[in-house]
This record gives sequence, C-alpha cells and structure tokens, in this order.
Amino acid sequence: MTSQPSPLASPFPDMPAVAGVTLRVARARYKDWDRADLTLAEFAEGTAVAGVFTNSACASSEVELGRANIVHGRVRALVVNAGNSNAFTGYRGREAVEAIMAQVAGSLGCAREEVFVSSTGVIGVPLPQDKARAGIEAALAATPCSWEEAAATIGTTDTFAKGAYASAMIGGKRVELVGIIKGSGMIAPDMATMLGYIFTDAAVDPAFLQRLLNSSNETTFSCITVDGDTSTSDTVLAFATGKAGNVPLTSFDDAGADAFAAALLDVCRRLAHLVVRDGEGAQKFIEIAVAGAQSDDSARRIGLSIANSPLVKTAIAGEDANWGRVVMAVGKAGEPADRDRLSIGFGGIWAARDGQPLADYDEAPVAAHLKGQDIRIDVDLGLGDGRATVWTCDLTHGYIAINADYRS
Amino acid sequence: MTSQPSPLASPFPDMPAVAGVTLRVARARYKDWDRADLTLAEFAEGTAVAGVFTNSACASSEVELGRANIVHGRVRALVVNAGNSNAFTGYRGREAVEAIMAQVAGSLGCAREEVFVSSTGVIGVPLPQDKARAGIEAALAATPCSWEEAAATIGTTDTFAKGAYASAMIGGKRVELVGIIKGSGMIAPDMATMLGYIFTDAAVDPAFLQRLLNSSNETTFSCITVDGDTSTSDTVLAFATGKAGNVPLTSFDDAGADAFAAALLDVCRRLAHLVVRDGEGAQKFIEIAVAGAQSDDSARRIGLSIANSPLVKTAIAGEDANWGRVVMAVGKAGEPADRDRLSIGFGGIWAARDGQPLADYDEAPVAAHLKGQDIRIDVDLGLGDGRATVWTCDLTHGYIAINADYRS
Repeated sequence: MTSQPSPLASPFPDMPAVAGVTLRVARARYKDWDRADLTLAEFAEGTAVAGVFTNSACASSEVELGRANIVHGRVRALVVNAGNSNAFTGYRGREAVEAIMAQVAGSLGCAREEVFVSSTGVIGVPLPQDKARAGIEAALAATPCSWEEAAATIGTTDTFAKGAYASAMIGGKRVELVGIIKGSGMIAPDMATMLGYIFTDAAVDPAFLQRLLNSSNETTFSCITVDGDTSTSDTVLAFATGKAGNVPLTSFDDAGADAFAAALLDVCRRLAHLVVRDGEGAQKFIEIAVAGAQSDDSARRIGLSIANSPLVKTAIAGEDANWGRVVMAVGKAGEPADRDRLSIGFGGIWAARDGQPLADYDEAPVAAHLKGQDIRIDVDLGLGDGRATVWTCDLTHGYIAINADYRS
Repeated sequence: MTSQPSPLASPFPDMPAVAGVTLRVARARYKDWDRADLTLAEFAEGTAVAGVFTNSACASSEVELGRANIVHGRVRALVVNAGNSNAFTGYRGREAVEAIMAQVAGSLGCAREEVFVSSTGVIGVPLPQDKARAGIEAALAATPCSWEEAAATIGTTDTFAKGAYASAMIGGKRVELVGIIKGSGMIAPDMATMLGYIFTDAAVDPAFLQRLLNSSNETTFSCITVDGDTSTSDTVLAFATGKAGNVPLTSFDDAGADAFAAALLDVCRRLAHLVVRDGEGAQKFIEIAVAGAQSDDSARRIGLSIANSPLVKTAIAGEDANWGRVVMAVGKAGEPADRDRLSIGFGGIWAARDGQPLADYDEAPVAAHLKGQDIRIDVDLGLGDGRATVWTCDLTHGYIAINADYRS
C-alpha cells in the first residue's frame, strides 16, 4: 500500500474484538518488501465456516481445496498470503497449500480440513514452501494484532485498508460482525484478487451460515465490478465462533435470525463498496439501479452490462450524461428490453422516458450531479417487477496507467 | 475524418466498378460540417439482397425496418446517413426512415420495401426529415462517385476510408466483390456503428446469398471487438446485381459456389480487420487463436472473453507478455476449461503449457514480438477440436482520451 490512497477511500472504522478470533501477522517476504505479508487467524474450537468462491474455470489450488473443505463446515485457522497468488502453478502450487494446511493443523492440533488458505499476488510462481513455513512459525509466535493490521497485511495493490462492522441482537445477546477485505481490480503482475473475511461471535449452524452468505453475496459481492475481469482466486469466507453464547441459529424461524441476516448483508455490502472505492484509477463511485426488468436476475445482468461498458464508464469519467451509451449497454445485455419503454436517469432526474429524450429535460442539475464523486444511474425497463442495484467505478487514464504503463 | 489516421491504417485499395451499382453522395448537413454525409447507392432491377443486423434489444428503426424488408430479398436502393444515428428517437425516428423509403421509391419507381436505410451518428435526435429530403434530391441529381468517396461519406469517427476487394470465377464468368465499411468503436455523442456493404455483379439467389452472408459473418464481423460494446445500429448488407451474367447460384451444388463463398468470406474478413485497425486509440492489432476447445462456439466465446478483457488489452498496450491475464480471461468465459491442460503463447512461442509456465521459456523473442504492431496470442485448451480466431486492438490512453476527455 505505497500508492496514493484512492480519492474515494474511507477511513478504517473502529471495530470491536470478536471473541474466539485471534489475529497475527508475520513477514514471509514473498516479495522483496518491508512489510507483513502473512496473516494467520486462529479460531476457537467449534467455529462454523461458510464460503463463496470465484466461478473461474481456472481457479487456484487454494480455491479448489477451500471448496472441498467448506462442506465440513468447521474451521480452526485461516492463512492469507500476500505477494504470490500461487495461481497457475500446477501440482507444485497444490503441494505448497497442502504443506501450509499440515503445518498449521499440526501446531493447533486440528484436522487439515479445518485450515483455510488464500493467496494473492504474482501468478505462475509456486508459493515458496520455505518462506511460507518460516512465516507461519513467526506468526504463531507473534503478538496478536488489530483488525487494521490484518486488513493492511492481506492487501496487495490496495491503496487503503478496508473494514466494516455491524452488530445484531439474538435472543437478548448482542453479537458482533466484523469484516475485512482486499481488492482493487487486477494489476500486473499481481492479480488483485478480492479476498473478504467476515468474523462473528454469533453461534450459527454452518449450513444456515452458508445459506445466509450465499444470499448476501448475491446482492453485494456479485453486484460489483471494476473492470469485468474475474480473478482465479476470489474468495469470501464467514466465520462464526459461537462465543456470544446465543442459542445457535439454524433457520429463519429462530429468533434473531432476521437481525443477524440483515447485519451480515450490511457488512457484505459495505465491504463490496470499499473494493469499488479502491478500483484502479477510480475517481467516481457509480450506483446503477435497474427496475422494471422481467426478473431480478435479468435486472442484475442488465446492470452489470452497463457497469462493465467501457463507453458508459468513460462517459462518467468525462462527467457526460450520455444516456445513449446506457441504452446501448442495455441493448447488448442479451436480456428482454423494449426500446420504446426504456427510461434512463442520472442523479434522480430522468433524461429519457419511454424510449425518447424528455422535451423539458434540464441538463443543468444532471451536470452538477455528475461533477460529484457519487454518481447514480437509474434505468427503468418498463417490463416487470425485477430490480437490482450494482456498483462500479469510472474508467480513467489512471486505469490505463496502472495496467499498461508497466513492463514485467 | 479530421483526426490523425490510425497508426494501423491501410491505404484504400484500387477497386473495380460493379455493373448494376451506381454510387452518389450529397451534403445533407446532418451536422454543422463541410463534407458529404449522405450516400445513395442505386441498384439494377432484380438485385438480390441479404443482411445481418445488430443483436441489440434496443435497435434503431433503420434496423427494425431493414430486418422486416430483408425477407423479400430484393433491393433497388441504399441510403446511408452519417452524423445522426436516429437511434432512440421513438415514432418520430421511424417516420423519418419511412419518409426516406417513400421518397426514394417514388423517384426510382420501386417498392418501398426495396429501399434500405442506415444511419450513424448522434443518438436521441430524430433524423431531420427536411435535411434528409433535400439531401436525397441532391444525391439523385449528383454525378456518380467512386468507392473511396462513398467509403469516406459513410464514415463518422473513422480515421481512414475502408474498402476491400476480391473476385471469383463462376462457370467461366469472372465476378467482382467490392466492400466498404465504417466503424471505429463508439464515440460520444456519436455511436460509431459498424455499417458494412458488399456489392457484387454475380447472380445469386437471395436465400443462398443470405446463407453465405450468415456463415461469413460468423467468423469475421462476429469475431471482432474494439471495446465489447455493441451499437444499436450495426448492419452488414450484401447486394448481388446479377450483371455478370453467370447462371444464378442457388446452392453449394452449383459450379462456382465455393469460389464465390470463399471470395465473400475474404472480403468480409478484410473489412472486419479494417474496423479493428481503426479501433479508438488502437496502437496494436491483436489476433487471438483459440484451439482445443470443446466446440468452435466455445472457442469463439473464450476468444472474445480474452479480446474484451481490459487487463489483457492494457497488457498488450504495455508490451507485456502477461499470460496470467489470459488465463484469467479464459477462466471467466463461462466455458469448459481445465487449468492444468491450458497452454498460452505469444507470437508463436509458448509461455505456459499444460497449466504451468515453461521452465525454458525465453522471453526475449516474445518481448520483440510484442514491440511490433501485429500481435498474435495462441490459446490451447487441450480439451477438444473446437477452434476460432478473433481480432481486437489494445486499450490505450487514446481510448480514454477519445471517450472521456469530452463534454457534450
């Protein structure tokens, strides 16, 4: 995190400890840098885990093993390596992850399947086993650290540390939910993978935690995009230690389940927004609200088609209320749309309704809105009740400078 | 066409007249500019027509009417308006197109359905009927013009006029195929729609011409991308006047059909490449050859996922052999892929095979290749026999400058 912070950066929030979670960091020196780059989170016995992983067909060994282990629903440790993604490294990459799992399981006296590993950074270079081993030894012996230190340590090309926090009441017990995340787009030769972790002291059955994480993911992490590119290592894990002492949540029939679900969704949404706010070269945060689609899924796909359109993203960078480019992006989404029912607005003001520019459209307030940092685009398909909101950032010279003005 | 020509520009070729085709241009002054902006092509009676149109769900009235009329298979005139796309203009836009069809049909004494109209340029402003009417009158009275004048007149943000030419022998008769095209990405507030037209003096049954155009389109126009954005007006039309006097082609059983199909494919491919060579901000022409996929369709989708990836396109702009970004783009394509069978190469040299970087990989010749203007990326999925080749350009500061550094 040596670059200038993003102009859209948020300060790191004050976040409480979560009983049953101990964080430590160490210097594995995966790259030639002077910073902690290995994070070890240790969890109390009986901690539940749930996870969502990249859809990439070329996922890393970390993701493959994580997918295999998540079905057991239990976790004792998380290791995050920054500086080397270990992606596209064949069997040697897999051996490196298995070695970490064995080492940590041996030290903590738990099953290997209870150790989760994430890696982010340079690809095509197997994670060096000696550095990982020494780093984990150092981490095991280190003094516990803060959320902010852990959030900074999992980061690679991030320009600021990212955290979000919420709480909920379950049957008279207060539970805390704390999240940290890294990701800012992708940068050569590092893949700026999105890695997000949510820690709670609530007692939650692993299957129900997975269900809640899936549903939160659908409207948060799955609704953000920086450049439409998907890392081979994207991972979000949720850990529930149960130390709050509530009656374990197993379904929405349980008292407090709704409150917990709402808090989890809130943390996920804020973490997702922080990733967009650190998008490479981002100068503006863009919220795209799609209504009137044939279904929520259709609305989300239309929203992402707009959010991924280079022409829409450059128009916003240029502070240009170019609704024609939004029409174009709706049209190419491959979803039901009717040109003559389509309405497009910026900052709450309709520019075009029912397929035609508004006769009395006043561009002045729209132009003022577009000069701000937080941009809102409204799209109404006029077809049904489907809605979705997605988030992205603008496409600027900064993105090109970061990703092209570079030689490996 | 006032900007600097693209560094990838090709000189306009010397192309023969096509019997049965008369080209004229005029100044309709759709914009406040000093250039011809209306093109009128007149065809001999009995000319066959085939067409492919944008898949956009928000297509312009020109496209809607073109789709409706193409089924009749006959054409007497084509009108191309540059400077106003007439897209997203509701019923007034449709009326403007119908007025042009009626005016031209009245002058030439043909059916309205035999007049095709394309428009490209600013969106959201109904095509002014008075300007169109006067422009068509002027064009009808004008001296016939050259291919190059017509190619320049249909252009908007294009930095050079684009044409391609081939010939074929059908049963001892030589037939000519001449194509012109415009398109360079999309530029605010103009939509730099791709409009392509192929003219031949061969006699070809309309249904067979449509079949040949569909199949040529699949491996040419449908395999190029500049920014992944799709205009609401994209159109390719093929016109066959029959003046060469060959026995009309009706199927591949006819002598000369294969030769004609090959020539048509050749013209389409060269026209498609010219559009990429005029991509906004393009500094490099990129050919991406995908092999070993489960099917040709799958290979094409994987190729386009790579070609549309901002991270791949910026890597090429930066002359960086970043095969990790290619892996990422393969992984996110949503197509069958196996990380451990995947091979990636640049300029004919494999950088990674079977999921791992090559131990003896020599980056020097690859680096030299990437310094050139014509870049080749090879991808082998190692799964099946599916193959496809797609073309794109790099993503540079020039693209951002054209699309963001602008206020409407």
